[in-house]
Amino acid sequence: MNIAIAQSGGPTCAINASLVGAFGQALKAPEIDAVFGSINGIEGIIKDNLINLKNYINSSEDMELLKQTPSTVLGSCRYKLPEEEKDSEIYEKIMSCFEKHDIKAFFYIGGNDSMDTVMKLSAYAEKHNKDVKIIGIPKTIDNDLCETDHTPGFGSAAKYVATTVQEIICDSSVYSIESVTIIEIMGRHAGWLTASTCVLKANGIDAPHLIYLPEGDFDVDRFISDVKKEQAKHKAVIVAVSEGIELKGEDYQSGVTDNFGHKYLSGIGKQLENIVRDRIGCKVRSIELNVMQRCSSHICSKTDIDEAVAIGAAGVRAALKGETGKMMAFKRISDIPYIVDVVSVPAKETANREKKFPVEWITANGTNVNDSAYKYFLPLIQGENVIRIKNGMPVHFKIREEILRG
Amino acid sequence: MNIAIAQSGGPTCAINASLVGAFGQALKAPEIDAVFGSINGIEGIIKDNLINLKNYINSSEDMELLKQTPSTVLGSCRYKLPEEEKDSEIYEKIMSCFEKHDIKAFFYIGGNDSMDTVMKLSAYAEKHNKDVKIIGIPKTIDNDLCETDHTPGFGSAAKYVATTVQEIICDSSVYSIESVTIIEIMGRHAGWLTASTCVLKANGIDAPHLIYLPEGDFDVDRFISDVKKEQAKHKAVIVAVSEGIELKGEDYQSGVTDNFGHKYLSGIGKQLENIVRDRIGCKVRSIELNVMQRCSSHICSKTDIDEAVAIGAAGVRAALKGETGKMMAFKRISDIPYIVDVVSVPAKETANREKKFPVEWITANGTNVNDSAYKYFLPLIQGENVIRIKNGMPVHFKIREEILRG
Repeated sequence: MNIAIAQSGGPTCAINASLVGAFGQALKAPEIDAVFGSINGIEGIIKDNLINLKNYINSSEDMELLKQTPSTVLGSCRYKLPEEEKDSEIYEKIMSCFEKHDIKAFFYIGGNDSMDTVMKLSAYAEKHNKDVKIIGIPKTIDNDLCETDHTPGFGSAAKYVATTVQEIICDSSVYSIESVTIIEIMGRHAGWLTASTCVLKANGIDAPHLIYLPEGDFDVDRFISDVKKEQAKHKAVIVAVSEGIELKGEDYQSGVTDNFGHKYLSGIGKQLENIVRDRIGCKVRSIELNVMQRCSSHICSKTDIDEAVAIGAAGVRAALKGETGKMMAFKRISDIPYIVDVVSVPAKETANREKKFPVEWITANGTNVNDSAYKYFLPLIQGENVIRIKNGMPVHFKIREEILRG
Repeated sequence: MNIAIAQSGGPTCAINASLVGAFGQALKAPEIDAVFGSINGIEGIIKDNLINLKNYINSSEDMELLKQTPSTVLGSCRYKLPEEEKDSEIYEKIMSCFEKHDIKAFFYIGGNDSMDTVMKLSAYAEKHNKDVKIIGIPKTIDNDLCETDHTPGFGSAAKYVATTVQEIICDSSVYSIESVTIIEIMGRHAGWLTASTCVLKANGIDAPHLIYLPEGDFDVDRFISDVKKEQAKHKAVIVAVSEGIELKGEDYQSGVTDNFGHKYLSGIGKQLENIVRDRIGCKVRSIELNVMQRCSSHICSKTDIDEAVAIGAAGVRAALKGETGKMMAFKRISDIPYIVDVVSVPAKETANREKKFPVEWITANGTNVNDSAYKYFLPLIQGENVIRIKNGMPVHFKIREEILRG
């Protein structure tokens, strides 16, 4: 029998590590022959665009390089399967690709959209007696998947954010004048990554002074008052804000257009910067951590990468035991010492759902997070991988562009 | 005799390493007793706000932590000394601080503005027979100081940029659709840091596909044509652009204001993003590397940090030999093997001047840099320091905020 693996959704530092985990486990399983990589997620299955991974990943050194390569080495997609009743042809195409290549198990590394695909494909296969197991391997820097303690990719993003925020604090504290620095962090609907900046406390750093999450209730007047209170205590006030915060009130909604007629789509950081400049008048800067949050593998969390490998491998073992329609998940046993189990949960419990940051972990004044959050986050950023360097730069594993173009 | 050290201008990853170099050299010199740190650059001398560094830097471990701490641990300033004829009082204040504390040598770690201070103070001291040597230690991520092969701080910034651009390339190449990614890199007047992205070639990476510097001649129509040409070859086109590029033509100059009446000050990256969206219509994203370029000490260049220590130490030796009004500088002996000497040059040759990126290193089509640039940059990003980590985050050396507030 053969298996196939695909990667989907937005990049993280840990998706390729989960590929390594699944691939490595498959090498150890005598019943598995070929391990196919599907190019650009499920699109590669639909278009029969597969590569034999054993022709590309040739050594344990290749596996190490893959583990330190961010993003998705097989490409990605943002494709949502239609309901079977609306378009059964697409399901038939997928199943015929599986049959053509004797693929008995398919592993989809992705977020809650990908778990929708896992749910639908496994239901279709069971209904039509197709002999293929469908397993989801979670990943997302947003940490918003249900039924798992946390998601692979999140710990590395949090470690990057913690490291960088700490450095920005040094950078922003040099002049003798008052300043406000606003750091915009990813998370449209869930504030996990922004909240994780509370880990700086572990090293005695009393910042960010203000943390705002989409799960909280954001009010501009209160924000200005919060900043002023912190300015009484700190020369350089540091604010961490989720990109998903919404400013209420007409003033913040009417669009401004530029010379080309484009709506002025400034992020929340830039908006708050303007508000601080307008209403407080001090030196103020906003910084968007942008895609670096999801691709800075040079500063990945060893805990995260090791877990991503482990959960990929566990997915293959689950399929070989006959499981299908499942997402692999972490169950936390304890914070100190940090222990997690890998379990499987029904994909339908996680598909299309979002896990919000718990409001009970937000402090009463709404400007920070509490000790429960701190204990939850701190283990996830621990450990550093030894990064292979050539000519002063990390080495990444590559599959040639022509192949990825299909 | 005592000495004093101050740090000035914008942060880099290497300013504290030069402080360590000067401090460590002073410890070895039997004629030097106290080593004062001046808080917030020359302002600390003017206000007599000094700390005795031996009370803060207590061990070689402290020195190692300082070397991995970005920004300026003593604070900074952007203060320009007036001409003596305009305000001699300020000079008298400075000299009386030196006399009060028996300071016979003053070391100013900074950029071309700081070299102006070195030039003026040393001229004043000579004219008025004051027994104090004034030495400049260069630093700037912009690499735009004259009379030195390169500046401390630049190599670490270049290594951060190379590492991050490489990761962004992975991130931007995942989907099957065409895309353009525009990376805005620091350098208002000089394109050194943007040009340094050419080092990716050393690891076989054929990107950034387009590089635009302030020293080149930027034209919007040609830019669009350049992008289209690259799109014929690459699915994901990567553009590196200096923040200092200017768009010509009325369309790009008339200001747009937001709801608060603020001018819409978007960076060049955002402007080019809008232009690509408008005129090509493909997926496009702009990324501003922002202050992370100057403070990401976790990925500093060992070559840069070692050189910053060495040039700080050489400054102290030069003062002890009686030199004054000098800036310490690097003279490159060879690229392979990479060898530099530390020399001293008259501060007046570097004060208030900017070294531009050589136009003869820009390719004929204006969209890249040539092999001379590549050979120049590659040695500067070599080597990695072992970063001391605690709780999953780098450890920074700190002087308490109350002290820095003065």
